[in-house]
Amino acid sequence: MAKITPRSQDFSRWYNEIVQMADLADYSPVRGCMVIKPYGYTLWENIKEGLDRRFKATGHVNAYFPLFIPMSFLQKEAEHIEGFSPELAVVTIGGGKQLEEPLVVRPTSETIIGHMYAKWIQSYRDLPVLINQWANVVRWEMRTRLFLRTTEFLWQEGHTAHATAEEALEETLRILDLYADFAENDAAIPVIKGRKSESEKFAGAVTSYTIEAMMGDRKALQAGTSHFLGQNFARAFDIKFLDENNQLQYVWTTSWGVSTRMVGAVVMVHGDDQGLILPPKLAPIQAVVVPIWRNDEQRARVLQAADQVRTVLGDRVRLKVDDRDEVSPGWKFNDWEMRGVPLRIEIGPKDVEQKQVVLARRDRPGKEGKTAVPMEGLAEAVVELLSTIQVDLLQRARDFMEAHTTYPEDFEGLREGVANGFAHAWWCGSAECEAKVKEETTATIRCIPLEQEPGKGRCVVCGEEATERAVFARAY
Amino acid sequence: MAKITPRSQDFSRWYNEIVQMADLADYSPVRGCMVIKPYGYTLWENIKEGLDRRFKATGHVNAYFPLFIPMSFLQKEAEHIEGFSPELAVVTIGGGKQLEEPLVVRPTSETIIGHMYAKWIQSYRDLPVLINQWANVVRWEMRTRLFLRTTEFLWQEGHTAHATAEEALEETLRILDLYADFAENDAAIPVIKGRKSESEKFAGAVTSYTIEAMMGDRKALQAGTSHFLGQNFARAFDIKFLDENNQLQYVWTTSWGVSTRMVGAVVMVHGDDQGLILPPKLAPIQAVVVPIWRNDEQRARVLQAADQVRTVLGDRVRLKVDDRDEVSPGWKFNDWEMRGVPLRIEIGPKDVEQKQVVLARRDRPGKEGKTAVPMEGLAEAVVELLSTIQVDLLQRARDFMEAHTTYPEDFEGLREGVANGFAHAWWCGSAECEAKVKEETTATIRCIPLEQEPGKGRCVVCGEEATERAVFARAY
Repeated sequence: MAKITPRSQDFSRWYNEIVQMADLADYSPVRGCMVIKPYGYTLWENIKEGLDRRFKATGHVNAYFPLFIPMSFLQKEAEHIEGFSPELAVVTIGGGKQLEEPLVVRPTSETIIGHMYAKWIQSYRDLPVLINQWANVVRWEMRTRLFLRTTEFLWQEGHTAHATAEEALEETLRILDLYADFAENDAAIPVIKGRKSESEKFAGAVTSYTIEAMMGDRKALQAGTSHFLGQNFARAFDIKFLDENNQLQYVWTTSWGVSTRMVGAVVMVHGDDQGLILPPKLAPIQAVVVPIWRNDEQRARVLQAADQVRTVLGDRVRLKVDDRDEVSPGWKFNDWEMRGVPLRIEIGPKDVEQKQVVLARRDRPGKEGKTAVPMEGLAEAVVELLSTIQVDLLQRARDFMEAHTTYPEDFEGLREGVANGFAHAWWCGSAECEAKVKEETTATIRCIPLEQEPGKGRCVVCGEEATERAVFARAY
Repeated sequence: MAKITPRSQDFSRWYNEIVQMADLADYSPVRGCMVIKPYGYTLWENIKEGLDRRFKATGHVNAYFPLFIPMSFLQKEAEHIEGFSPELAVVTIGGGKQLEEPLVVRPTSETIIGHMYAKWIQSYRDLPVLINQWANVVRWEMRTRLFLRTTEFLWQEGHTAHATAEEALEETLRILDLYADFAENDAAIPVIKGRKSESEKFAGAVTSYTIEAMMGDRKALQAGTSHFLGQNFARAFDIKFLDENNQLQYVWTTSWGVSTRMVGAVVMVHGDDQGLILPPKLAPIQAVVVPIWRNDEQRARVLQAADQVRTVLGDRVRLKVDDRDEVSPGWKFNDWEMRGVPLRIEIGPKDVEQKQVVLARRDRPGKEGKTAVPMEGLAEAVVELLSTIQVDLLQRARDFMEAHTTYPEDFEGLREGVANGFAHAWWCGSAECEAKVKEETTATIRCIPLEQEPGKGRCVVCGEEATERAVFARAY
């Protein structure tokens, strides 16, 4: 098996190698586009399932809007077209003929959905509209990375319309909480919930909120965003309703999205030099049985025990029995470690005799993570251990983030802080100070955390009074 | 509530009205593209779920390939490009610049997937490859109809590669059976499994198989296709493997798809003048509770009983309790009939007294379909009735198809047969006879059924000896 570049040596290379060697994705012949391989796509399906369940539990429904958007639609919201125009893919020929109006391949769907909402929404009784869409979108990116930044990517985009600003803002933050809940409880990724600065917000939003996570190289990744769009798109697309007093009003809208980028986050937060480490809730395979034998007689007994494990566990966990003859147990160990299967179940002839199996945790390599467990009560033991692994992965990531977080009080401290991780620093709120940090350190404001101790201090850049700390970090 | 055009008066108009009034879909501002509204999308989600479960149970896995395909890829298979070139949407501008090579928005993915398979497949050990993709595709259609023929549509496309022709053919037919099983058991749509004639086959296939269904206007709809591609794409994309004897061989491939068209089929097979009739297995809402009251005292008691029904049924069926105050029970009856909910559960004050509810079947309007059922054991009664409705809908559609099927022995009989439904007629196999039927009757060969009594007869067109009957019909 090919050796992976160690994380510590070259994180970026480690990432690219692991994504391909673990069969998550492959490069495609189309510039900047990727192929999501079955193992990676199953991971994405589990992410989708975790999010979709939460959307539906909070009253959202799915729908589908066209891939193509007339160019004129994007131009209706000034900031929106300014932000997206450098990234557009444009269809100019359809059915062999030059199109009268070029069609943009959606980079995001606020405009086409806004157009439809104007048609569907007449009265306060039609509100709120709580719609989500699972779709592909295209943004012509200059430098691409598998999952992290690709020309085409898969995502969900929620688009809601409300009667009041308060309700829309409440929805924006409800979704932010939902994203954080998914990231922490399903993906085992701790996140900081915060507001984006003006320069980092979504093109067309009044306020953008984000969940930011720390990757294994201590850089930040924006893992999901939720935007309060105010009445910007309502005015651009004339989305009005008659309120209870029979007054015509513009609606208030929100939009929010999580993409296949989340797969990249899972890789970069949990993986190690042996390969992926997948949180049990998202893992395509939660446990793999590796039978160990030296001769045919042993083989028969061991495979019989493996079958028994399948019978006991098959309905409770996503299980794979690796009974391949052509590769050795050691090779299989490496292979499944590379693919990040959370739990390995080893069965050798001695184990069969003693009516037990050996459980080996992917997140604790070596002896420490191994325990012999009796066949009796195995299902309960495995389910419990998977849930322990899930919790431990989150805790480990949380400890890592905390160990690489500083609260500098001056510019030198900030410079050191962003070189090593996240720096929570007082910021006066000016775009100049923000730009200066970027220029001198390449770090940007990831967000202004929603939860922070009240108080004030001096802006680490200009020394002016500041009432909020911002999280500065180098970012993907 | 607006009145629907009767089916018998103008089927096509009835269809368009019902799709919009039942909130399945809406027209979009983009030529030929539709918006799938939440109710219609949930129906599609249930279709997806029924198919996806069957794909996974037969060893298939999902993956995702790029939306864009280099134009040169499509040109590698001569019949393929000839068939698809009039229907292509082409991206010529990306990131503000003219592209060196135009990118086609995928009309189907044999070519890009073939390119990847050439990279992934080396040895017989890599075979079979059994991959499916859920995706949007674009075909620039001249005349479009909601769900039935849209420029962009959603579908699944399976693409498999095998070591031998036999295995590939077996897979092609396994999928055809899978589609028929889904259509009959989930969508309650009887289908004829058959082979396409040369003129109707997929561009690039050796043989195309299809499931054909009869709509309420007695026209045929192709509801799913499964193609044996031979080595056509393997040769075009150089997909080779080393066989067990260390010989380099081309693989054998298949492709197969079902699209959002299936939603249109469900509408056209089961619907009536009151609106949709949805088969319980696919219905977004399987049963709707309509509480009936005349005063506040009754309202409280009736809503309490409705709550009780929700408690009892909520986990067993997809249930909606319609407790709206602003509309009357009669209005609600019409509304849910329009939306095709299979079962209505009425609860009035008398029912509360008698500890019962009234079940009203959507597929049997009037008294015949109504029964009073005690609250005790309600869940079992409802689940059983839904399963009866599912079976009865299939039987009704089957009876309808049989009643409009003929076995003509001459051209006049054929002419009459296709005017009234499906005509199974002897066909010599020549393209000339096929073309003559089309010219004179507008009917086409839908398929040559796989199951037919052996024997021979005289071609209904030319009188030459024929060994197979073909199904002729007017079609969507």
